[in-house]
Parts: sequence; structure tokens; C-alpha cells
Amino acid sequence: MSISDNVSRRMVEGSWIRRMFEEGAILKQRIGEENVFDLSIGNPVMEPPPEFDRELKKLVENPMPGMHRYMENAGYAETRAAVATQLSLETGIDFNINDIVMTCGAAGALNVVLKTLTNPGDEVIVFAPYFMEYGNYIDNHGGIVTVLPTDEHFIPELDVLEATVSAKTKAVIINSPNNPSGVVYSKELVHQIGELIGKKESQFGTQIFLISDEAYRKIIYDGLEYPQVFHHHPRSIVTNSYSKDLGLPGERIGYIAAHPDCRQVDGLMSGFIFCNRILGYVNAPALIQRVVRSLQQVTVSVAEYQKKRDFLYSHLVEMGYSLIKPQGAFYMFPKSPMEDDVAFIRELQQWNILTTPGRGFGFPGHIRVSYCVADSVLEGCLEGFKKVAQKFKLC
Amino acid sequence: MSISDNVSRRMVEGSWIRRMFEEGAILKQRIGEENVFDLSIGNPVMEPPPEFDRELKKLVENPMPGMHRYMENAGYAETRAAVATQLSLETGIDFNINDIVMTCGAAGALNVVLKTLTNPGDEVIVFAPYFMEYGNYIDNHGGIVTVLPTDEHFIPELDVLEATVSAKTKAVIINSPNNPSGVVYSKELVHQIGELIGKKESQFGTQIFLISDEAYRKIIYDGLEYPQVFHHHPRSIVTNSYSKDLGLPGERIGYIAAHPDCRQVDGLMSGFIFCNRILGYVNAPALIQRVVRSLQQVTVSVAEYQKKRDFLYSHLVEMGYSLIKPQGAFYMFPKSPMEDDVAFIRELQQWNILTTPGRGFGFPGHIRVSYCVADSVLEGCLEGFKKVAQKFKLC
Repeated sequence: MSISDNVSRRMVEGSWIRRMFEEGAILKQRIGEENVFDLSIGNPVMEPPPEFDRELKKLVENPMPGMHRYMENAGYAETRAAVATQLSLETGIDFNINDIVMTCGAAGALNVVLKTLTNPGDEVIVFAPYFMEYGNYIDNHGGIVTVLPTDEHFIPELDVLEATVSAKTKAVIINSPNNPSGVVYSKELVHQIGELIGKKESQFGTQIFLISDEAYRKIIYDGLEYPQVFHHHPRSIVTNSYSKDLGLPGERIGYIAAHPDCRQVDGLMSGFIFCNRILGYVNAPALIQRVVRSLQQVTVSVAEYQKKRDFLYSHLVEMGYSLIKPQGAFYMFPKSPMEDDVAFIRELQQWNILTTPGRGFGFPGHIRVSYCVADSVLEGCLEGFKKVAQKFKLC
Repeated sequence: MSISDNVSRRMVEGSWIRRMFEEGAILKQRIGEENVFDLSIGNPVMEPPPEFDRELKKLVENPMPGMHRYMENAGYAETRAAVATQLSLETGIDFNINDIVMTCGAAGALNVVLKTLTNPGDEVIVFAPYFMEYGNYIDNHGGIVTVLPTDEHFIPELDVLEATVSAKTKAVIINSPNNPSGVVYSKELVHQIGELIGKKESQFGTQIFLISDEAYRKIIYDGLEYPQVFHHHPRSIVTNSYSKDLGLPGERIGYIAAHPDCRQVDGLMSGFIFCNRILGYVNAPALIQRVVRSLQQVTVSVAEYQKKRDFLYSHLVEMGYSLIKPQGAFYMFPKSPMEDDVAFIRELQQWNILTTPGRGFGFPGHIRVSYCVADSVLEGCLEGFKKVAQKFKLC
């Protein structure tokens, strides 16, 4: 084998997702893209809000000398200051630019954080269903992923967590609003997780970091709110992205924010900056860093996503599908009527509906339906879902 | 220690460079930026060429739906096609889009290539003086860096290479025009390196990749040319960047190009695409990918850099400094008149001149002088260099 054994193995493990994508691409070519209902990926259909276009235009029409050059590896001070101000406002905690590192999206942020923290063999806990890339990110830096089950509402179980955290545990990753389930964790739950981690730190004499991946923080429905993790553990680190809330996932822009108490954690922030550099990101893209600076309070229309959720959720429930109503993000995670979720995916594929099997999220027996698509796709997929529901006698 | 032992160690090892930077920043604050002659970093002073601004404006003023969304992890087909066409033109070899992966700069490209190739303990050979980040990049993915000396002109020695390549050797990295020495490798040398690698592959029954980091390819003086490596080894991989030749290092845009024969190498290209994803880059920034598409033949003014080189080189030689005339990139690498290059750096610092010690490039006893700065900085530094030359009785 010419390429790394580990990369090769990981590619094979993930390759059935790729196969689905490829089959989807072939299908689109064969019957026309407009006849395929692609609910497989989280590539938001919504365009960035007008404020983004305005800000970008302003910059491009009035270029400043040096605006495309290297800056500090942590990112522009002005952008970090804007993030810190916004976080201070939202949390009541006093953030400053030294608590923020601009990154190539949340994926870049997570890799930087995990590289900085992880010794070979350190354990990082995640809760299934989970964004499977976490497993790759943890493995990239020598960590061991420990996947914990959740309850029937996809909510972490504290006793399971308590029994799992060990002296080798370096971090716990939570992701709310959750990809793929759409659930939003309550303040009480986050508090309990933080408290439990603190207790375990005392027990083992270690430092355990609570990493909150908040890529979907702003996409929450029904007036709910995702609580700030910072109030619940002093060693909490937020990784965030402008991909979803500003609709620009291709531009690779996000940040790491560490609890101001982490200034006391030896080498942590300079570790992030160093790893941002040596992992080859060097810095978050310059131009877009400048653009997002003034967009801290801007979001794509959440109401539109909520409408899409309501539309698809009510139809699927009416057809007899069993699913938890998602409270955020733009995914739902219905139960597969067949034990084999991949087989069920193929049933839907017969009706030109593309979805992702739950096993792609460490949680077989469900499927992920991404509804960040045009309304015409949501309307078009109903017939297929209905036919399949009938075949499986769901109603 | 809360952070990874390895990261912590690497930060300490590199920390004297950081200390220099920090001292420089303090100096600038104390005596004013205009009184500091900062020749320490390779942050090109030249603005992107007008074609870049034009193309960017055109895109921003006529936004297309979805232009900030995810695309294939390999990058836009149109951009990859433009790179492939340009490479076909330059090499006479038939590249297509499947040979190209767009990346977050050359640093991203190198990390992706090394992650894809390296099993723990695999050896990767580099020639000193070398861009020290190579050591971090190799270590990121479990490889072992093997640093080979070069001759008095900073040129690799074939007998040393021959004696070093082993069954554990996965890749040889060359970097020409070279950072920090400015030398450009001859076609004959590249051919001999390729031939030697091929011989060793046969001997050991392995595949050994020749990785050519060509971030400075277009910045070459005196009508010289850096030969195409693709003609000299079928398993050659080029990592490239638009940072230097379009003057936009902050935007993080570059690519991997693999020899078309690599299509036969099991999993290589899909490994690159997979690693581009799992390392958290996901894809090269979308907007700038579109911009560089049509700029394949555009470069900042190389003549201006050559003028800067001529100016500084002739003055330093006249003062008695011993240095090889650089043929490319925008660095020169004079010999330190003291054995301790860090001590010599401090001598120059007395005259508010900031440079980087050779040990920062695995080659003590020299200093790196970056001349991609304003002419006023080059003019201003002469007095200090003169005083130091006099102190050390160089002339």
C-alpha cells in the first residue's frame, strides 16, 4: 500500500457514505437534477444575508494596502475583538481578544483544539448520534474516541457519562443544536455535565475540557435558546463557525473561544495559535475575516428554516414516521422502519430521495434528513416518503 | 501539563524565533515602526496584481447563487481544470482535473500530502537549510524527519542522499527556489534526484514520493527557470501556493498536483481529497478559488523583487558579508561572522535590524534576510549592516 494504512482504513470505513453520494451523482445525471430529492448533505440553500454582500462589496471596492497579507496566526485583532465583545454581551463574562483564535471554520477549530490538547491515548468522549468527523479529528491527533449512547430523545445520560470519565479523559465534546438529531440541550443538562466534569477533575487530579461545537447555535426554533456552556465549566472551549448562520460554508471561517479562566491554563491559548500555524491553516482566510467582523449579530432567516422544518416534520409524522421534533440545526433523524438503515436508504432511493443512514452518525436504525434545501425539493420528496410509508405500513 | 507534551515541546523548541518576533514588536512600539528594519518574515510587501482586484470585483459585483457554499472537497472543477491546463502547457504532460486538489495554501497542501502518505515511523527527507515548518508538518502525521546537509552552495549532495534513503523512506521534499537560501536547483540536479529515488524504489521494492514545494516557483531572477520535477520521477507531487506570486498569503489558497502516473497509485488522489476533508480544511476558500481560476499566468512584478535583491546583495557584498547570490524567492542567507547566529542577530538588533537566525532553518552560522519589504526599509538598514560589518572587520 502506498498510502497510510490508517487513512486507507478510515477511507474504507467511510466509503459507503461516499458510495451513496456517488450513486446520487449518477442518478442526477441519469434522470436530471430536478428529479432527485437530495436530502443528504448539510449544504445550506440560503444565500448569505444582504449585510454580508454589502460588507464584502465595501471592502473589495475600497481595498486597503496589505489586506491580503499574513496577519497574526490568531487572526486580526479587530475581528477577535468583535467576537470577544459579542461573547461578553451574550454571556456577561469578560472576554478579550486573547481568548479568541480565528480559524478555518469549526472543523479547523476542532482540529486545532484537539491537536493542542491530546496526548497519544487520551480519551475524548462524544455522544451518539454524532457528526462522525469528530472521530477522524480525534484520531488525527492520536486521541481515542469514546462514543456514549444517549436516551430515546438523543439526550446524554449522566450516569453513563459518570461511569465513563476516567483519568485518561481529556475532553468531552457536545454538539447542540445537534447534527444529526436537531435536539437542543437544556441549561440544566449543560450544567449537570459541567458539574460532573468538575467533580471528576477533582477525583482524578486532571483537567478535563468541555468542548462545545456550536456550528448551529443561531439556528434554533420555537423561541428556544442554547445555553452558554461558559457558565458551567471553567475549562470550556467553544468552537464556532459562520458557515451555517451566514450561509457561507465554502469560505471556511470560524473561531475558537476559550473561557477567560483558561488564561490560567498553561500554554493553552498559545498552543491553539501554534497549532493553527503548524497544522497548515496558518490563519483563517484574510478577506472573510474582515467581512464577518461587523456581522456578529447577523443571521440568515431562521424563520425560513423553521417553516421548512414544520412542513417536512408535519408531513412525515402524518405519514406515520417516528421522529423527535427537531429544535434546531436543519436536520431531522427519523427512525428507520427497517433495522438496516442502509437498506431503508435504498428504499427511499427508489423514489429518488437521497438521505444519510444513521450509522453514518454512529447510530444505526435511523436516517438523517437534511432539510436546508429548496421548498420544491421538500414538496417533491413527499410522494416518495408516502409510498415508502405505505410499503412499510406505517399508517 | 494540560496541553499535549509534544505540542508543548515543539513550542519551546521554536520559542526563540517567537521571542525575536516579540522583541521586534516591543522595539517597534518603543521607537516607532518606521525606525525598525524588519527583515524577519516573508510577508510580501507587494500588492496583488491588478488582474486579481479586477477578477475579485467582478465576482463580488455579480454574485452567483451558491457561490459561498460547499463544493467538492477537491475544489471547483473549473479551477482545477485551469490549473491542469496550465500545468499541461508548462510540462507537455497531460494533466486533468483528477490530478489536482485545491488547498488552503502550500502549508495545507503539504499537510494533506504528508497525512495521506505517512505511516508512523516513515522517514521523510529534507535538505538543510529548510523551512522548519516541514519538521512540524511531518511530525503532525507521525513521520520522522531526516535532515540532510547540503554543499557550500546549499545544493543537495547525491552521495549523502543515496546513503540515507532506506526502506523506511516515504518521501523526499525539495524546495526550490529555496527558503531561506534563494538557490534554484538545476534540471540536472532534479533529474539526478529523481533517478536516485527510482533506483532506491527498485532496490527496496517501495514507492518513494518526490514532493516539490514550489511556493516560490514564479519568483526567479536572471532569466533562470526552475525545471519541472514531473519529468524526473513518476511519483512526483507538487505543492504550490498563490501566496507569493499573487501576493495574497493571508487568503490561504494553493494546490496539490500529482504526476498523472499517480492515478495508478492506489488511493492516492482520493486519499488527498479525504485528508483535505478530515484535517478540517474541508475545501480551499470558495471565493478566492474562483478568483485564481483565471490568473494562472499572472504574477506580481518579479523585476521589482530582482531590483530589491540586486540592491541589498550588492551592498552587503561590498560591506564584506559572505553570501551566495540568491536566484529566486525573496530571501538571502549570509554567513554569520560569529559562530553563534543568534548572538549575531542580536548585534544587528542593536541597529534595529530584525532578521532570523539560520538555526531557525536547521542551519546555524547563517542568518536569513527577507527582502520582500519596502525600498525604504532596504535603504534604511544599510547603515546598521555597515556598522556591524565594521565591528567585525569584514572589509
